Amino acid sequence: MLALEGIPLGHRFTALEPGRDPPADAVSDVVAAAYDDPDGLARIAAAADVVTYEFENVPARSAAYLAARLPALPPPEALEVAQDRLAEKTMFRQLGIATPPFHPIDHAGDIEAALAATGLPAVIKTRRLGYDGKGQAVVDSMDGAVEVVERLGTGLIAEGFVRFERELSVLAVAGRDGSRASYPLTENHHRGGILRTSYAPAPGLTDALQAEGEKLAGLVLDRLRYVGVLAIELFEAEGRLLANEIAPRVHNSGHWTLDGANASQFENHIRAVTGMPLARPRTPGPAAMINLIGELPDAAAVAAIPGAHLHLYDKAPRPGRKLGHVNVTGQDAAGVMETVERVWALLPGVGELPRATGW
Amino acid sequence: MLALEGIPLGHRFTALEPGRDPPADAVSDVVAAAYDDPDGLARIAAAADVVTYEFENVPARSAAYLAARLPALPPPEALEVAQDRLAEKTMFRQLGIATPPFHPIDHAGDIEAALAATGLPAVIKTRRLGYDGKGQAVVDSMDGAVEVVERLGTGLIAEGFVRFERELSVLAVAGRDGSRASYPLTENHHRGGILRTSYAPAPGLTDALQAEGEKLAGLVLDRLRYVGVLAIELFEAEGRLLANEIAPRVHNSGHWTLDGANASQFENHIRAVTGMPLARPRTPGPAAMINLIGELPDAAAVAAIPGAHLHLYDKAPRPGRKLGHVNVTGQDAAGVMETVERVWALLPGVGELPRATGW
Repeated sequence: MLALEGIPLGHRFTALEPGRDPPADAVSDVVAAAYDDPDGLARIAAAADVVTYEFENVPARSAAYLAARLPALPPPEALEVAQDRLAEKTMFRQLGIATPPFHPIDHAGDIEAALAATGLPAVIKTRRLGYDGKGQAVVDSMDGAVEVVERLGTGLIAEGFVRFERELSVLAVAGRDGSRASYPLTENHHRGGILRTSYAPAPGLTDALQAEGEKLAGLVLDRLRYVGVLAIELFEAEGRLLANEIAPRVHNSGHWTLDGANASQFENHIRAVTGMPLARPRTPGPAAMINLIGELPDAAAVAAIPGAHLHLYDKAPRPGRKLGHVNVTGQDAAGVMETVERVWALLPGVGELPRATGW
Repeated sequence: MLALEGIPLGHRFTALEPGRDPPADAVSDVVAAAYDDPDGLARIAAAADVVTYEFENVPARSAAYLAARLPALPPPEALEVAQDRLAEKTMFRQLGIATPPFHPIDHAGDIEAALAATGLPAVIKTRRLGYDGKGQAVVDSMDGAVEVVERLGTGLIAEGFVRFERELSVLAVAGRDGSRASYPLTENHHRGGILRTSYAPAPGLTDALQAEGEKLAGLVLDRLRYVGVLAIELFEAEGRLLANEIAPRVHNSGHWTLDGANASQFENHIRAVTGMPLARPRTPGPAAMINLIGELPDAAAVAAIPGAHLHLYDKAPRPGRKLGHVNVTGQDAAGVMETVERVWALLPGVGELPRATGW
């Protein structure tokens, strides 16, 4: 999607891609190599004027190698922070951004202090490399925590549960010249740790809440000397925002911007990292995004629904794998919600639709 | 642009392309061969499930070869008609669609009858292979006509001038299942025979005029058993429409649909030829399109203008060559026109802006 949106801006793409038959092949030259392959990295450095990332688990040494040779944006430090849940939450705390309670666990001796900080139930996660609900477990007792720590090993973090009303995200973008822009906060619904639906602008979004989201995103952008799109996953609890984690990249909760905004997060990310001026996001109306996970619906049936926009990634179906998404646009929230229901009814093997709060 | 819009629908593209360094290379596999190269055509037939065209001068024999082997849409007959200005205008006449007066010229002996039909001044054109103002000349006397016919050779057509208020186009699309959809009529402004600006919906567009445009497009779609996007260039004269020519493909006057409609002409063309349901076009507001011809403006300066959407083709600059376009969207016609003026001011070596009538 970065390439699809960047090609009309005059750019061409080369992807470093360890997987076989990568979707990027349709829109870029592919260097087939591991993310830490010296020859692959050298070929990327030779081919590109600027390098960016579409996921945050690029090895820090690879990012550093590239950053020593050409502009690598966002800066590798943003990857490092995002790769470590403890560094991420510590950064939030240092910036005065509220988070759920957390505490590191490096060995069994830390468990007691950790649970004292987080309360029970808590979720124990690996500090690194977890995503989409992998590498984590909920515990509701000291014994349970000991068992999980034994299973997950060292380098863990315990996080407390907060009673929150909903999950939101803020998508902000910073240009090379320091300019800033933000999309409206988005309401997100996960199932099994995987994003299922997003609604934007978040139902009932007030100017004050939007300003709060932009303010905390701005603090993170400043701290990381960030360039590009940054997403921060948030909890809304009693009218305030708690930061959960950052994604130093375009983010699934911003996929609706392909159809629901004048300029998508992908276009703005490419504008940012290539030094073009940012596009000021405008949203003509409400939008929704439905992930296609594990198995695809009939494409023609989805395409037949007015207001549904199909985006397929050309990935082989596999349980839990994101294979595409459907954006929904419409005149008003009720119309969008009705269209979301029609799309949802076509999805194989899904449960109840995660609906927007208040649409 | 067909590939950029078709890839998210799950399709992959292979292009038969005789030119060097084709822009299509960024988004498709390229078979580098002439349009009548047997091996190139065989490779296309082997690679594809369906074939379509992005320009109408594909040799009829090539289209017939492909159509004998796989669905080739729109049907080759549409190419044949579009390749011959006389066949095209004769079709309009047979369908009861008004056209400017015309008369074939095969040798000097036809000139007198032709000018009697068309009046003076007239424009004498080659029946085949003219585009963007090439292969034609305006004559205002019998002597001038004789000279032009001597220069252009045989296989010509004389066309009369009509006093028209403006040039419009209708973009219609037909699905494999016979379904139909249309975009709002677009107002077009040419300079030196090349489209410079388009405005959509055409200023002051009435339901009656839109219905008239859709009706005549429907007659042509029926006649050609058409599948895909069809453009018809029109003159509006005293409140009625005269047909000038057809383009059996996505059309420059529909490029605004990339940013000014819920689904672009490119997406709808791909939907049509691949047998997907059509998207019903909706336009949230007015839009404009400015061609970038011969020389490019500063891309960052264009990108800095709110409401301007940059589309570059990665073609080497050459006088008269279309290198890209800028779409403009906005809340109202006055705002769009103001943004068009800001974009126009950045274009090197252009004359006065061809403005929308009445915006």
